[in-house]
Amino acid sequence: MSASSPRRVSSTYRVIYGDTDQMGVVYYANYMRLFEIGRNEWIRASGTPYGRFEEQGMMLPVAEVACKYKRSALYDDLLSIVCWSPVMGRASIDFAYEIRRGLELLATGSSKHAVLDTSSGALKRWPLALYEILSLYRTVETKEL
Amino acid sequence: MSASSPRRVSSTYRVIYGDTDQMGVVYYANYMRLFEIGRNEWIRASGTPYGRFEEQGMMLPVAEVACKYKRSALYDDLLSIVCWSPVMGRASIDFAYEIRRGLELLATGSSKHAVLDTSSGALKRWPLALYEILSLYRTVETKEL
Amino acid sequence: MSASSPRRVSSTYRVIYGDTDQMGVVYYANYMRLFEIGRNEWIRASGTPYGRFEEQGMMLPVAEVACKYKRSALYDDLLSIVCWSPVMGRASIDFAYEIRRGLELLATGSSKHAVLDTSSGALKRWPLALYEILSLYRTVETKEL
Amino acid sequence: MSASSPRRVSSTYRVIYGDTDQMGVVYYANYMRLFEIGRNEWIRASGTPYGRFEEQGMMLPVAEVACKYKRSALYDDLLSIVCWSPVMGRASIDFAYEIRRGLELLATGSSKHAVLDTSSGALKRWPLALYEILSLYRTVETKEL
Repeated sequence: MSASSPRRVSSTYRVIYGDTDQMGVVYYANYMRLFEIGRNEWIRASGTPYGRFEEQGMMLPVAEVACKYKRSALYDDLLSIVCWSPVMGRASIDFAYEIRRGLELLATGSSKHAVLDTSSGALKRWPLALYEILSLYRTVETKEL
Repeated sequence: MSASSPRRVSSTYRVIYGDTDQMGVVYYANYMRLFEIGRNEWIRASGTPYGRFEEQGMMLPVAEVACKYKRSALYDDLLSIVCWSPVMGRASIDFAYEIRRGLELLATGSSKHAVLDTSSGALKRWPLALYEILSLYRTVETKEL
Repeated sequence: MSASSPRRVSSTYRVIYGDTDQMGVVYYANYMRLFEIGRNEWIRASGTPYGRFEEQGMMLPVAEVACKYKRSALYDDLLSIVCWSPVMGRASIDFAYEIRRGLELLATGSSKHAVLDTSSGALKRWPLALYEILSLYRTVETKEL
Repeated sequence: MSASSPRRVSSTYRVIYGDTDQMGVVYYANYMRLFEIGRNEWIRASGTPYGRFEEQGMMLPVAEVACKYKRSALYDDLLSIVCWSPVMGRASIDFAYEIRRGLELLATGSSKHAVLDTSSGALKRWPLALYEILSLYRTVETKEL
């Protein structure tokens, strides 16, 4: 028997001074930059880099974002950004994130994105071919015991 | 008869090029910078600028943040950042935010902060005097009709 | 007798946590954000906000920037950003900057900007009317003793 | 016969949306973030990551920075950051930078850093051992024909 689970794509990022604040840790807003890195690499891994969406007259602005901070990321940490897509709608896509330093979980987050038509700014359904590519990519078959 | 409602403190911020991204709008992470401006000014208005907390060996790191984006903030917009504190715990404080352009509501958000001891990094109760100052400041008496 | 000197426009900015780094001072790249604030307000004061340039199909990308850091700007400092334009060419404009905390000079800087046609990306001469407005605005008459 | 030339260390960085501005290119201040990445990797390659300097009670704040922008870096570009150290003084070090997209040169820059004692904030000579390590590392022997 088999089941499907969300495909997790991992990226890495080395923290610079410019990411930290005077508390000596990565500034809270900069986790959203990390989320973007993870999202970009998830989308690239699906076979359709985000720039391609833009060429097709679509954009995916963020409608909602949330982050829970558990432990601080520090200067020079080599972070792992794990990203997956728990939900995909007809004109939307959600992403979830984990920020890790080795095995340590530093933060978790999520974002919701609308699909918009670049010229009109109106909500737009995913083009069918792209919807199928992303839907297929979103999950991987896993063997159940 | 009277009741109390949360005291709202308003700050302004002029959007620069450096806040925007190539979608032509303020980059989503930069709303957390706006939230920080609002929070700083709320705290200053209470009579105890945040730097004073640090001098007393406390810090207020962000434990959670969330934002809902409704309309885009644009280059050169003069934004209003409205901040209030809906909840205050014995070792924590929450803030809520609205980002407005004139009467238009662009985004809403919230953040949760723990009170930590700067040297040990451990959770710390509010000093009593400060707790009372902030508790009193948090709400304003409003006349009910 | 009279002479002319460059018109200096002053803006203010309150430093937030997000501007600092773990050295406890404003991160060096963020001075370029301050320069942009100063430049925007100089341009606005001349009577033609930068957005108007864009509407007329022009942009002023930065060709060069330089900064000398003398003293550190700190969290919660209320900074003054003083901006003036020492030189203006047929298809270019230069700006100079001082970052101050009260009377203390924290940093000095300069930037050179080309005038480009937004659609072609090619170098473009200033439209005559705009050139005259900016040239006139650049300097003020000063009484010589 | 042999001569010495500065050792060039190359790092890579993938541009995200958060680096761009509404002109559709990387915002000018963000090149200083790229410079920091290049500088960090040069220092790490010398055998002494920057964090080690801090542990030894030293910091290397930026005294001057300059950048010339030749071509625009764009969203999703995989940039090369080339860094070397043209000059090293008894209490200072200079770095030079090139930002490239493949063979295309996008920007050049330089920065000057003072060596400061972290606790006193005063200028400090390089510790001898570290000075020798960095001096040796700075250049590579090259065969002259």
